Amino acid sequence: MTDSVVQLALRETQHRSNQQLSRWLDTLSHQDLPLIKAMRHGLLLGGKRVRPFLTYATGQLFGVPITDLDTPAVAVECIHAYSLIHDDLPAMDDDSLRRGQPTCHIEFDEATAILAGDALQTLAFTVLSEGSLNPNAESYRIDMIRTLANASGASGMCLGQALDLAAEGQHVGLEALKQIHRNKTGALIRGAVRLGAFAAGEKGVTHLDELDTFANAIGLAFQVQDDILDITSDTQTLGKPQGSDMSADKSTYPALLGLQGAQEKAQQLYQEALHALHAIPYNTEQLEVFARYIIERNN
Amino acid sequence: MTDSVVQLALRETQHRSNQQLSRWLDTLSHQDLPLIKAMRHGLLLGGKRVRPFLTYATGQLFGVPITDLDTPAVAVECIHAYSLIHDDLPAMDDDSLRRGQPTCHIEFDEATAILAGDALQTLAFTVLSEGSLNPNAESYRIDMIRTLANASGASGMCLGQALDLAAEGQHVGLEALKQIHRNKTGALIRGAVRLGAFAAGEKGVTHLDELDTFANAIGLAFQVQDDILDITSDTQTLGKPQGSDMSADKSTYPALLGLQGAQEKAQQLYQEALHALHAIPYNTEQLEVFARYIIERNN
Repeated sequence: MTDSVVQLALRETQHRSNQQLSRWLDTLSHQDLPLIKAMRHGLLLGGKRVRPFLTYATGQLFGVPITDLDTPAVAVECIHAYSLIHDDLPAMDDDSLRRGQPTCHIEFDEATAILAGDALQTLAFTVLSEGSLNPNAESYRIDMIRTLANASGASGMCLGQALDLAAEGQHVGLEALKQIHRNKTGALIRGAVRLGAFAAGEKGVTHLDELDTFANAIGLAFQVQDDILDITSDTQTLGKPQGSDMSADKSTYPALLGLQGAQEKAQQLYQEALHALHAIPYNTEQLEVFARYIIERNN
Repeated sequence: MTDSVVQLALRETQHRSNQQLSRWLDTLSHQDLPLIKAMRHGLLLGGKRVRPFLTYATGQLFGVPITDLDTPAVAVECIHAYSLIHDDLPAMDDDSLRRGQPTCHIEFDEATAILAGDALQTLAFTVLSEGSLNPNAESYRIDMIRTLANASGASGMCLGQALDLAAEGQHVGLEALKQIHRNKTGALIRGAVRLGAFAAGEKGVTHLDELDTFANAIGLAFQVQDDILDITSDTQTLGKPQGSDMSADKSTYPALLGLQGAQEKAQQLYQEALHALHAIPYNTEQLEVFARYIIERNN
């Protein structure tokens, strides 16, 4: 499996999860109401679908048919989509474009964007409580709901967002930066992997510890690589001198460790991820290649 | 049981649910973070605690100990509290005061208020997936989560809010008005009652239909009485002529039915509520008196 195969697998996941997300939206009444259109806009705007990919790939490594993984994959993406809609709001990041398209509050209005985010979060829990699961996973349905809630709320994603807000304009050290990312993006990535494990029943649950270690490593590696790309892609595209973010005192891994230090950190996290996967006695190739893709991707 | 006894029962519920809500907030880390303070502010600002009351009263009529009802009562109030925080935002109702206190985005800031609402919604599902239940209710935990999600999201409360937004500045007929309220406030009131029934296990589940009828009737009656109070309290407090809302073409029950028609409607809904309760072979007195309180209250 090469990087382009990961890209292909991501595109397949994207296609499948879009179909499945759409199917859930179709069950709602009042399809012409701005609320429902805004939910669809937020969900189907695109994106790499990294989280559904992780849920599918984790469940599949334990032999779960892909159709039995749609429920957790959709639920985790509903949470991610809601968080993007709310993050883009004027009071938060105030972004008017995402992936070249108008963000939800621009395409509709702020009130509708707030509501659409709220309703997408709720949809995640509707999906997890109603959606079909593998028979082996039925007794873990509550664990899946608990896992997603803990990954999303004030002990997970929302906490990370709040820590990030509190750190604005402040000099943040390595430990604090790690804590922000571990919650802001890491918690839901860990949740996506865990959901895939629960969806495999007992077989997957046995390996939750190794999978957590894997997810923590790639979650952080994802952020480190993002920070690295901020610099290297600036150099290529803007002609801005490499390291200009560092002198702006922005808390990033290259700012704290230097570019080379950050690259070494990404490599180290990759090795940690591999090490965790090797302790799982199944074919973990898809997750291994994905881990490499995380630290080698150019965008 | 007289009205003052209902007030007393509501105060007891308020005390109990505040304690229980606080207990859940205490389990979170980072108590000094604005996010957690804002969640506490939103949850503990006060309010009648009508929804927890309904959950407690419904469960108790089937003989469930009050301690086994804290979990669903807290969950439903988390949803209500999140919806108030988001409703008060500048992009929504833009309210700076609620019950004489600064609203969440005034006390903190908009970003924190959005996040606190988001995290309170998530907390509702954490509570329902982790909180203790009566042993008879354990097998209905998933039904409770499904019920709360359906009551809150794009098939319930959020839908009602969206229908209300879409109706702004338009003349709305009786059926459309009913549909707005049935979702905007009715869905969560129905959810609160249903959660109390599920918390009683099989015994309560057997009577879901009658309880739904009861909840639909008092949910609508609550709104009709609100509309009536808007007029009668205006007359007393502002000296504004009775019926001035009607001439403003505001869609309210008195505007559509006349004041007397609205009062008759409230009476009719009260009778519907009683009729539904009489079909339940348990002591439903607490719910009966509450129904009367709904249509006779002065504030």
